[in-house]
Amino acid sequence: MDLSKYIDFTNLKADATCADIRKLCDVAKEHGYASVCVNSRYVALCKKLLAGSDVKVACVVGFPLGAMSTDAKAFEAKKAVEDGADEIDTVIPVGAVREGDFAYVYSDIKAVLASGATVKVILETCLLSDEQIAKASEVAARAGAHFVKTSTGFSTGGATLHAVEIMKASCGNCKIKASGGIRDAETAAKYIEAGVSRIGTSSIL
Amino acid sequence: MDLSKYIDFTNLKADATCADIRKLCDVAKEHGYASVCVNSRYVALCKKLLAGSDVKVACVVGFPLGAMSTDAKAFEAKKAVEDGADEIDTVIPVGAVREGDFAYVYSDIKAVLASGATVKVILETCLLSDEQIAKASEVAARAGAHFVKTSTGFSTGGATLHAVEIMKASCGNCKIKASGGIRDAETAAKYIEAGVSRIGTSSIL
Repeated sequence: MDLSKYIDFTNLKADATCADIRKLCDVAKEHGYASVCVNSRYVALCKKLLAGSDVKVACVVGFPLGAMSTDAKAFEAKKAVEDGADEIDTVIPVGAVREGDFAYVYSDIKAVLASGATVKVILETCLLSDEQIAKASEVAARAGAHFVKTSTGFSTGGATLHAVEIMKASCGNCKIKASGGIRDAETAAKYIEAGVSRIGTSSIL
Repeated sequence: MDLSKYIDFTNLKADATCADIRKLCDVAKEHGYASVCVNSRYVALCKKLLAGSDVKVACVVGFPLGAMSTDAKAFEAKKAVEDGADEIDTVIPVGAVREGDFAYVYSDIKAVLASGATVKVILETCLLSDEQIAKASEVAARAGAHFVKTSTGFSTGGATLHAVEIMKASCGNCKIKASGGIRDAETAAKYIEAGVSRIGTSSIL
């Protein structure tokens, strides 16, 4: 199976340098990955480095805690799109999900969608119950998100096939991205068989 | 020693709920702490809950990775101040420090200072060499920051007395905040003896 078109090749480390991001883009171009996924500081650099290729630029927003104000997430997303981002991976307000304040969750996602980008909503499933994963997936779909995504890779756990099953049953027409702890081709293939359309990883699979 | 006035009482967890933040504010008022330190989603709530007390509202920005675009940090800080934040704890662009791009670091700090708040610049010292800690402290002071701060508490290490010594020797008129792993009064007192003006902690000392 050719995994390349499934891969969001990712470097979100606090101490990533421009040199690290250059390497990320070089590898993504060489392998024909779907995108590189970076923090907003690096969007303009990636856009420049990836010009003329099919590799898209994905930018995280409100990352990795999701507890940034909605207005700040909307601004970060809008600015990233101006800088050249094609896709935005935004973190859900996890606290609001746990409180059951889905009106807040809905408007938080809507505000990021206003950027015009393809939006992936990171649920941070390791912090949610099965019921909360299902409800958050429904709300993301209702808001018009393009993807629901399992994990930031910065919390207590990463992707699980169990979480993906729940998301698949609840996310309507949204696609699914699995991320967090996926470091080999065999694991990636399992997620793709389970119905995932995109894999986030920092490893060359 | 009365530690109360040194304490930024902190809850930055991704899954913190409004109920958790209410408890944080109640404890901070009861003990007369310097501030509560929260993510930007919770600033307006804290301002309301702390009205009529001396406890300030501190808000983190670009947190915890520091790799958010400068414009997004500036916006998050400005919006937090509009929502009632008195103090902003912003994360330095760690990658830029490691690259030696101190012009970028300087302008990133300046952009957050434009919010008008008291600004603490988090260096994330565990990711820096001694020389980088010294240089980052100098640049923060030159930009006009009010504090340099050791750590986010979300990386590979927290405060150390060694990092505080380097910061003290390099940060000019800036005050120093120690945070990350400080969970008892004895440890807090050691940092205060070392010249620290503020302690970030999630524990009741």
